[in-house]
Amino acid sequence: MASDLRPPEHQVAGHRASADKLGPLVDGEGLFYKPLQAGERGEHEAAFYAAFTAHPAVPPRVRGAFFPRFHGTRLLPAPASPGGAPYPHIVLDDLLAGLPSPCVADVKIGACTWPPRSPDPYVAKCLAKDRETTSALLGFRVSGVRVVDARGGAVWRPDRSELKGIDAAGVRRVLRRYVSTGGGDGLDCALAAAVYGGEGGVLAQLRELKAWFEEQTLYHFYSASILFGYDANAAVAAAPGGGSGGVRVKLVDFAHVDDGDGVIDHNFLGGLCSLIKFIGDIVAEVQHCVLANVTHNKVPSNGESQLFERGNFTELPVT
Amino acid sequence: MASDLRPPEHQVAGHRASADKLGPLVDGEGLFYKPLQAGERGEHEAAFYAAFTAHPAVPPRVRGAFFPRFHGTRLLPAPASPGGAPYPHIVLDDLLAGLPSPCVADVKIGACTWPPRSPDPYVAKCLAKDRETTSALLGFRVSGVRVVDARGGAVWRPDRSELKGIDAAGVRRVLRRYVSTGGGDGLDCALAAAVYGGEGGVLAQLRELKAWFEEQTLYHFYSASILFGYDANAAVAAAPGGGSGGVRVKLVDFAHVDDGDGVIDHNFLGGLCSLIKFIGDIVAEVQHCVLANVTHNKVPSNGESQLFERGNFTELPVT
Repeated sequence: MASDLRPPEHQVAGHRASADKLGPLVDGEGLFYKPLQAGERGEHEAAFYAAFTAHPAVPPRVRGAFFPRFHGTRLLPAPASPGGAPYPHIVLDDLLAGLPSPCVADVKIGACTWPPRSPDPYVAKCLAKDRETTSALLGFRVSGVRVVDARGGAVWRPDRSELKGIDAAGVRRVLRRYVSTGGGDGLDCALAAAVYGGEGGVLAQLRELKAWFEEQTLYHFYSASILFGYDANAAVAAAPGGGSGGVRVKLVDFAHVDDGDGVIDHNFLGGLCSLIKFIGDIVAEVQHCVLANVTHNKVPSNGESQLFERGNFTELPVT
Repeated sequence: MASDLRPPEHQVAGHRASADKLGPLVDGEGLFYKPLQAGERGEHEAAFYAAFTAHPAVPPRVRGAFFPRFHGTRLLPAPASPGGAPYPHIVLDDLLAGLPSPCVADVKIGACTWPPRSPDPYVAKCLAKDRETTSALLGFRVSGVRVVDARGGAVWRPDRSELKGIDAAGVRRVLRRYVSTGGGDGLDCALAAAVYGGEGGVLAQLRELKAWFEEQTLYHFYSASILFGYDANAAVAAAPGGGSGGVRVKLVDFAHVDDGDGVIDHNFLGGLCSLIKFIGDIVAEVQHCVLANVTHNKVPSNGESQLFERGNFTELPVT
């Protein structure tokens, strides 16, 4: 089975595996292998997964809905080591398994990406990055994104440097493009109702996660990400009804999880609320357009792209 | 009228006015005079009050319930200046007016007390303080507190250095002592139901404020505080029914407010949620004690003080 391991085609963040470099692998049968990170981080992440999986105070619904299932650790041959000496990997559910045309976004949550008791040089390094990116300002940053245009098949995957430089307006555009089909200016938000809206959509899932974060005092998730995943074809088939099946919202990257010690994770929760507001604004915009079109009995015209430039739609009167 | 101005008896944070130092003053008729802070801060705070007061997107209910009313600025004679040269003051409602025995707590909200675009030395200074105090860890810190024991009249007002050094457990104790009458170990929480609980209590008011912060993208309140106020005698009279009239929850200190630019104040919101959890835990504890006493048909015994040492009560089974 190990011979079938290969780098995931749809990876959007982190190091990529190659003939001479460690990186995540998938087996094509639903499992994801993540090499232990260097130093204490890898051990720390594996220990988190083991403890979290067994913790009696974590609601099973939260664990099942929002975290990849943990299948222990496993030694795999390491590339570029003499004789392929074994290297430990964390084995997880492949979160994108079963999606033929996966659209993925990796959003690192929290204005602050370092645990409070970190050594000063690490704080300085993280703080500089949090201030250069949108983390400090928005409470989150987009670390990676991959969008398949279901109609044409084209893939949009901006590289890391492109994402690093974006501001709040850029984040809004990325979050719109993530649910657009590539028609017009690529920001038609044609899939917003199906992916972000509806009962099983991203927004409803984020709100459920938020309710847990308002109460849970077990863990502080520094530098963790929320991964969104949906299938381009399934979303097109479901749109614009809303709430297509199979939209995935999962927490990943736990190398810097800290004990909560009876305090809520206000840093993660604040960033999560900010992300909810960004996505909620897009859903409200789209609903507003649909309402406006019904009211005026016409299809969206070029006035729409102007609308999308406004930034904060909530201040527009809803007819 | 200016001759009646005097330093507020119940001030718990900030510089105190004296014969040769500027500091806040009250007129005894409901107004509070805050000297403009040095540098750009004072001008910035006055400009914030003026803009906030007139902003059409601020709900009147939020402005009226949670912010001191702004009465413009006024020149008052400055102490220790030749001939008492006039110095500008911001004129506000005196938030403690009408409380004969005011109990006050000043809680600075936000893990991060500096706006993201601040110069590096200012960031370094604030960051050090945020990490030394509980700000980074809890998302807030208690800057000042004053509790009157309604039964004996004794006043507890820890000094600044005492509050600076406290940890999460210390914050829990201060928030308990704020609603205790000084019986037993001074942590009886006899007024928790009247002050924190009930319809008009602190918890309900904080939750209403939170709902606004989940939506508002107008302002980011760096380094602002929430001030709690209640009257010791009125609370004793109301306890343990819950929801005594006259519990006050107000935002103060706006020298570092930043434009929201369409983004929620995730830093303030996260800290506010953390404070809500701390206070909600105390309310739940007290309710649990009342329930337990009803169930076992006995009054609280010395087992109670043990209970208060547990920290996070929510994990105890509720009978």
